[in-house]
Amino acid sequence: MYLGSWLGRLCRGLSRPIGKTPQPAWGSLSRSLALSSQRIPELSSFVARTNTCGELRSSHLGQEVTLCGWIQYRRQNTFLVLRDWHGLVQVIIPQDESAASVRKILCEAPVESVVKVSGTVISRPPGQENPKMPTGEIEIKAKTAELLNACKKLPFEIKDFVKKTEALRLQYRYLDLRSFQMQYNLRLRSKMVMKMREYLCNLHGFVDIETPTLFKRTPGGAKEFLVPSREPGKFYSLPQSPQQFKQLLMVGGLDRYFQVARCYRDEGSRPDRQPEFTQIDIEMSFVDQAGIQHLTEGLLQYSWPDDKEPLVIPFPSMTFAEALATYGTDKPDTRFGMKIVDIGDVFRNTEIRFLRDALAKPQGTVKAICVPEGAKYFKKEDIEFIKNFAAHHFSQEVLPIFLNAKRNWSSPFAKFIKEEERLELAKLMEIKEEDMVLLTAGEHEKACSLLGKLRLECADLLEMRGVVLRDPASFSFLWVVDFPLFLTKEGSPTELESAHHPFTAPHSSDIHLLYTEPEKVRGQHYDLVLNGTELGGGSIRVHDAQLQQYILATLLKEDVQLLSHLLQALDCGAPPHGGIALGLDRLVCLVTGASSIRDVIAFPKSYRGHDLMSNAPDSVLPEELKPYHIQVSWPTDLEEEEKASATPSNHLSS
Amino acid sequence: MYLGSWLGRLCRGLSRPIGKTPQPAWGSLSRSLALSSQRIPELSSFVARTNTCGELRSSHLGQEVTLCGWIQYRRQNTFLVLRDWHGLVQVIIPQDESAASVRKILCEAPVESVVKVSGTVISRPPGQENPKMPTGEIEIKAKTAELLNACKKLPFEIKDFVKKTEALRLQYRYLDLRSFQMQYNLRLRSKMVMKMREYLCNLHGFVDIETPTLFKRTPGGAKEFLVPSREPGKFYSLPQSPQQFKQLLMVGGLDRYFQVARCYRDEGSRPDRQPEFTQIDIEMSFVDQAGIQHLTEGLLQYSWPDDKEPLVIPFPSMTFAEALATYGTDKPDTRFGMKIVDIGDVFRNTEIRFLRDALAKPQGTVKAICVPEGAKYFKKEDIEFIKNFAAHHFSQEVLPIFLNAKRNWSSPFAKFIKEEERLELAKLMEIKEEDMVLLTAGEHEKACSLLGKLRLECADLLEMRGVVLRDPASFSFLWVVDFPLFLTKEGSPTELESAHHPFTAPHSSDIHLLYTEPEKVRGQHYDLVLNGTELGGGSIRVHDAQLQQYILATLLKEDVQLLSHLLQALDCGAPPHGGIALGLDRLVCLVTGASSIRDVIAFPKSYRGHDLMSNAPDSVLPEELKPYHIQVSWPTDLEEEEKASATPSNHLSS
Repeated sequence: MYLGSWLGRLCRGLSRPIGKTPQPAWGSLSRSLALSSQRIPELSSFVARTNTCGELRSSHLGQEVTLCGWIQYRRQNTFLVLRDWHGLVQVIIPQDESAASVRKILCEAPVESVVKVSGTVISRPPGQENPKMPTGEIEIKAKTAELLNACKKLPFEIKDFVKKTEALRLQYRYLDLRSFQMQYNLRLRSKMVMKMREYLCNLHGFVDIETPTLFKRTPGGAKEFLVPSREPGKFYSLPQSPQQFKQLLMVGGLDRYFQVARCYRDEGSRPDRQPEFTQIDIEMSFVDQAGIQHLTEGLLQYSWPDDKEPLVIPFPSMTFAEALATYGTDKPDTRFGMKIVDIGDVFRNTEIRFLRDALAKPQGTVKAICVPEGAKYFKKEDIEFIKNFAAHHFSQEVLPIFLNAKRNWSSPFAKFIKEEERLELAKLMEIKEEDMVLLTAGEHEKACSLLGKLRLECADLLEMRGVVLRDPASFSFLWVVDFPLFLTKEGSPTELESAHHPFTAPHSSDIHLLYTEPEKVRGQHYDLVLNGTELGGGSIRVHDAQLQQYILATLLKEDVQLLSHLLQALDCGAPPHGGIALGLDRLVCLVTGASSIRDVIAFPKSYRGHDLMSNAPDSVLPEELKPYHIQVSWPTDLEEEEKASATPSNHLSS
Repeated sequence: MYLGSWLGRLCRGLSRPIGKTPQPAWGSLSRSLALSSQRIPELSSFVARTNTCGELRSSHLGQEVTLCGWIQYRRQNTFLVLRDWHGLVQVIIPQDESAASVRKILCEAPVESVVKVSGTVISRPPGQENPKMPTGEIEIKAKTAELLNACKKLPFEIKDFVKKTEALRLQYRYLDLRSFQMQYNLRLRSKMVMKMREYLCNLHGFVDIETPTLFKRTPGGAKEFLVPSREPGKFYSLPQSPQQFKQLLMVGGLDRYFQVARCYRDEGSRPDRQPEFTQIDIEMSFVDQAGIQHLTEGLLQYSWPDDKEPLVIPFPSMTFAEALATYGTDKPDTRFGMKIVDIGDVFRNTEIRFLRDALAKPQGTVKAICVPEGAKYFKKEDIEFIKNFAAHHFSQEVLPIFLNAKRNWSSPFAKFIKEEERLELAKLMEIKEEDMVLLTAGEHEKACSLLGKLRLECADLLEMRGVVLRDPASFSFLWVVDFPLFLTKEGSPTELESAHHPFTAPHSSDIHLLYTEPEKVRGQHYDLVLNGTELGGGSIRVHDAQLQQYILATLLKEDVQLLSHLLQALDCGAPPHGGIALGLDRLVCLVTGASSIRDVIAFPKSYRGHDLMSNAPDSVLPEELKPYHIQVSWPTDLEEEEKASATPSNHLSS
């Protein structure tokens, strides 16, 4: 939603703004948010107003009120619409000579100026009620008015219906924040976090503990920002999560910890990532995987906004292996089907050569997805796109088969499929008329990954053709569990790296494999997925110092010296413990249906990591670097210099 | 409180630890903290235990329970005391042969090992109840036991009653956190913050908004940490407060904002300061000074711990001028008297030369404080200390006069004081027998500052002699208001600088003086003082762009370009607004009676800014600096190098 457009819509009678998910209308914003707490907050305590603009109704008739707000609209110098962030109200400008000063103020102040108006709540004349406006039965007969601040110059014409670029929105963020969508997103975020705190602190005795953000660099912490200290050559590091601290708190006996934690990650330029982000960080002692999952489900159910359908818990769960085999990914979007089916058995006696060849290999499989009504909606260029996608990203061939309305099979190789294979395939994949099957052959993981990607591409294509596959009002949570504890390093298959982090405990039933076939060990790690997005993850941690030492030193070949404090702590009576971290920005983004996490953050950075409003990061004077014993190494390579230097105009387009 | 000593005390029957303020005993910790919320939290949800160690009473008799905790103590292999962070409970080790494995676990696990014990709650045998222990009526007859983690090596003998140095406590913070005092402080802190959030969000409709910590350097922000970015020569800055953001949120219409905000300040080594700290940051639109004060009073009253006397509001208020004249400081400790009295009138006709000379000068005054029973308690060396202090810090002379028990005046210059002067002085200052008067003469501000310092020094001295002046259980809040808006720069009396910050609005009645005598303008700034410590402060802000421009450019000679986004925002319909920021670490420190803010922070830095546990800040490899286009400028001066380099052993003693 852009400033100009919603202001325009507001003027034309508060129609519902078009968002990705259904949203409450502007006027009901404060009510819908307030309802979720048992006590309705006092919104006019301590300030100059007696009421908010949005709350006045027929029940207030005759009351003397004082309102503070922005001039939204004025007509013929007879009335104006006053706005605050709880709604709109109509104010009648007095016309009699004795009120000349009031009239002058209200008629001359530019739109978007801030005024204080006192007056009486009166009925609108019969026939002039506005049922689209929550305050549409009443109006305010102004008695006094005060211009609190004139709006002198807006950087863009807010009545302009032209959409603003995101760069412009970010540069004038203080104006963009006045938009319905930003107000809704930020207020909902605050409310959700407050409910989470109530659940954790008041209902379950968690302790909110702040951990430091100026910390030591972690081994391999390439994505950590550095902070120079006043000691030559010594740097703090901004941690990516409070992982070490939360574990040390368990050793310290603070057995139910949480924090709404600011975290930092320097990944350079990446779309829809922020250099600083927030996670709901939780850790408990004496807990197992099921305990953390129940806690998390209860947390989300309790804090879920009242204007959405209540969450049903427990959430379904799926192993990593199942997610890969069925959805081709570890974060399946389970709002729709199109699951991957292993159809190797159908083609066990096929004469189609490339299938036969694939099946003859040790890891060879034939896999397919059925795209409902794909034969009806997909155009030739869509098929080309799919084939090219498979070739480009996976060097893999994919074959489409269509079942058209006359129950004929059409495909470049349809004629090679035997009748019995057709029947078996149709039954196995529940193929209906007008459906399309995408078939590929090859090694299990690769074939699944490809079809998992194609599944999402096909869903996008179908939705572009008007088919509703993924209901924006539906929230499909899913636990993904039983991840492998280690992966083999890319390019160096004899070396292992942690699938998540080195503090994840192995499955108790797999511990013996650590010493024989560590790559087969499953970790006690769990991811929470919402609508195909990874919302967070956690694990039961290693609490045994010797096991942790073995994993770090022997299996991962890490320098244990850097984590000696943690190893030592585990030897001092560390309780078994585990936890989870949920990405708050991502969660609120999905809940509000915002198109980017930047729309749920008050002052986000651009995807290049810039604050476009203040122009950060910025140059500093050499003498400001001196106390930190650092100096800039200017790139000598001209190309690099050109690539890296960012002029203000570049900022705007970033 | 040190680990060894309180563990020792706990073993000897839970006697009350000696702290600066009265504290609840260990066993009642969770109860006293839980009581402050209406619903008692479930402390055993989601985990392996059925109950906490501290909660079992006679009402639980016969229940089968599972407890997880640390072995606190074991006697004669017949019973042990199990501890968690809610209390202690006695466990009977089964002696029959069928329970040999349980007995083996419970008898062989070293103290501080973590065990899970299941059993039945039974009565203690008559006469063996322990009334000092909240669970002292019952014990657990163990049926099963599991060793969850053996405590292998503690870095120090925790039964050792020798006090640990703070460096050792910080190095093994995860063990220090097990102390009663740290558990109490951190749990109380969490509870207070939660209550503050309830007050702000649920009762008064504030919106919790996170603002960035990677920001642009502010003009003159010498105390801001720098964060190198991946663009050569460009740096983020860690802000000292969200000041600009909170004002921009008001322009953006988020009219009731708060945040528990992490802030950063690089001041090098300073005792009892932390490089990162937390403030309760609040801003409101359409508010005046009284509104913010009422809000703050309500906030503190609502969140005040239940184990303290309830706060009485409103808090008293005092102008800056009055605070200086009466207490010689802008943060008076109003828990005790010894106010500064202007006694110039008494000596209007004095023959004492230095008083006559002082009074003859334009700004000349004679001031005094009366130290109750000073004549009785102060020794000759105390007087010498006071005189030296005045001479050393203020280059000022101070004269003591004693009124001894025989109502004689004794002083080096008592004989020069006329009888009528004595009578007048005794009446004016309410001098009683055994009191001591400290008298000084000179310019008003200097004389007051000196006596303000001496007042605190004398209070310390009296308390060292056993006189109770400042009740540690008493909390004296005070507003200090009407500060000057500007100060003249030290060493450059024609230049002005902001007394607080350049966004503070002038008193409306003083605005005309801005253009004629700006140094006489009072600001709409208010400080909140508790027991002589500045807890926080705030102001009504400038919301007029022209006025802000005039203050920044004309009066303060700042480069307005650096704040152009703020100036522009003020011109876009900025509402009048104001706010406050309260130092959370300091507040919790005073409330808990901790001796340092390090005792209310889970993982604090040493006064040199080091994390002694992980050894941060630390060296990084040159290639880790490369992406940030910086390199270390090693000091060439050997002395500087020596001073700055910090070896691990230096860390420990820092």
